[in-house]
Amino acid sequence: MKILMTHADLEEFMITHFPQVAGDFGIEEVTAEGIDMRLHVGDHNLRPGGTVSGPSMFSLADVSIYLAILSRIGPQALAVTTNCSIDFMRKPAAGVDLIAHARLLKLGRALAVGDVLIRSEGSDAIVARATLTYSIPPKAG
Amino acid sequence: MKILMTHADLEEFMITHFPQVAGDFGIEEVTAEGIDMRLHVGDHNLRPGGTVSGPSMFSLADVSIYLAILSRIGPQALAVTTNCSIDFMRKPAAGVDLIAHARLLKLGRALAVGDVLIRSEGSDAIVARATLTYSIPPKAG
Amino acid sequence: MKILMTHADLEEFMITHFPQVAGDFGIEEVTAEGIDMRLHVGDHNLRPGGTVSGPSMFSLADVSIYLAILSRIGPQALAVTTNCSIDFMRKPAAGVDLIAHARLLKLGRALAVGDVLIRSEGSDAIVARATLTYSIPPKAG
Amino acid sequence: MKILMTHADLEEFMITHFPQVAGDFGIEEVTAEGIDMRLHVGDHNLRPGGTVSGPSMFSLADVSIYLAILSRIGPQALAVTTNCSIDFMRKPAAGVDLIAHARLLKLGRALAVGDVLIRSEGSDAIVARATLTYSIPPKAG
Repeated sequence: MKILMTHADLEEFMITHFPQVAGDFGIEEVTAEGIDMRLHVGDHNLRPGGTVSGPSMFSLADVSIYLAILSRIGPQALAVTTNCSIDFMRKPAAGVDLIAHARLLKLGRALAVGDVLIRSEGSDAIVARATLTYSIPPKAG
Repeated sequence: MKILMTHADLEEFMITHFPQVAGDFGIEEVTAEGIDMRLHVGDHNLRPGGTVSGPSMFSLADVSIYLAILSRIGPQALAVTTNCSIDFMRKPAAGVDLIAHARLLKLGRALAVGDVLIRSEGSDAIVARATLTYSIPPKAG
Repeated sequence: MKILMTHADLEEFMITHFPQVAGDFGIEEVTAEGIDMRLHVGDHNLRPGGTVSGPSMFSLADVSIYLAILSRIGPQALAVTTNCSIDFMRKPAAGVDLIAHARLLKLGRALAVGDVLIRSEGSDAIVARATLTYSIPPKAG
Repeated sequence: MKILMTHADLEEFMITHFPQVAGDFGIEEVTAEGIDMRLHVGDHNLRPGGTVSGPSMFSLADVSIYLAILSRIGPQALAVTTNCSIDFMRKPAAGVDLIAHARLLKLGRALAVGDVLIRSEGSDAIVARATLTYSIPPKAG
């Protein structure tokens, strides 16, 4: 899987197409198997007790696989999530960002599948894991 | 499954415990099998092309099962999502709210399971479906 | 969703294409929303303690959605499962068959999604639930 | 996670408790993160076209996480699967066994979560992936 969009390309793509949420996420590294992403945890991500909300972790997993796919197929804003299975396993550490480690397991013509491990920065314990399937629209001729 | 929290109880609980998000959601009805909920779709829920974001639909499914459980076990803010499987099936209609129809399938001592169908208001077509598992902490003695 | 294969058509299809497993399953009824199926529980489906094995319930869910799809699109043996999420919620009753109630939630050109509730015959309690996605190959021209 | 049951212990446990299916599976290795297992693919695992059936792959994923858990908690036959999400991604190679690489992501007092990658022997391509949650009963006092 050749890399068609670099770290800088993906950041620009996010700012252009998803300006409402681009600031929440940072790209750590486009990796050989996918991408590593960061959620800049802010007050709007928190729930009572200081835990990061489920929807915030879902968003992190979703954007990680999305950008992992785009990094290999180029800028196709129309790829859409068709399925996500997510397990919440431990309470995140308070006051630190979340780091997602995403890998692509399949990149077919019509469907792509990837999984994500989410940890609190500086910790090995897995906070959440997710698997996502994206539908990739046929390229316009 | 006897109802321990009414429509009004649940609204008050949301405003007290989840003030950041309570305004996004409305309770339509506590039903015999669960609960019907509304997502007041606003600009912050939208993605390019006018579609409702995946995380917004995840949030709607998550809060629906959460409140369905609380309506039967009483106000236990510590119930936590352990798993969600969600399928995004159709693009929501533009400019209308989303309605979730949630039903409880199991309400055990330690685990509860429910599923959710999400539709655009006024349409029969299913936009998304989800199944969620919640872990219910033991009651303090 | 017009019905293209009847109860009898589906039974004949199973015997022709899946002779190894056709005897395990019975079609109860092709319904307005999907299909109702039976697992004839035999010794090879049981685990220690008399419970029905997880793979047997997975098989029941899988074949139910498969036949629900075929009943609407006609005999296409090449439809394949791409995803299944299954929750095991209660121990089945001993010595009785399992009944699956399957409904189609989406029947698109490329993907179909359905869910299944599994109960012990004669009981309302849900033993397991599953959601399955099938990929439907393009029709040969 | 200290290893409490060795390769030989697990094989003996399978033969004693699951004699109907023990012959289908082989333990490759108890690993630092979980276990590697083999499905001895036989005629009863095949579907038309020579592909391995979905239920056979489900069984392989299920038994792999089960034994990975037991290897760390000791022989507790009563651990039960509560959830499985499985993605079927590629057709297995014909005429070869399947190899499962299972890792434990969480091993709590009440719940354990693990994921599994399944490949055809001798191939790097992932045929299927699964995540499973097991409920672990409290130890009898």
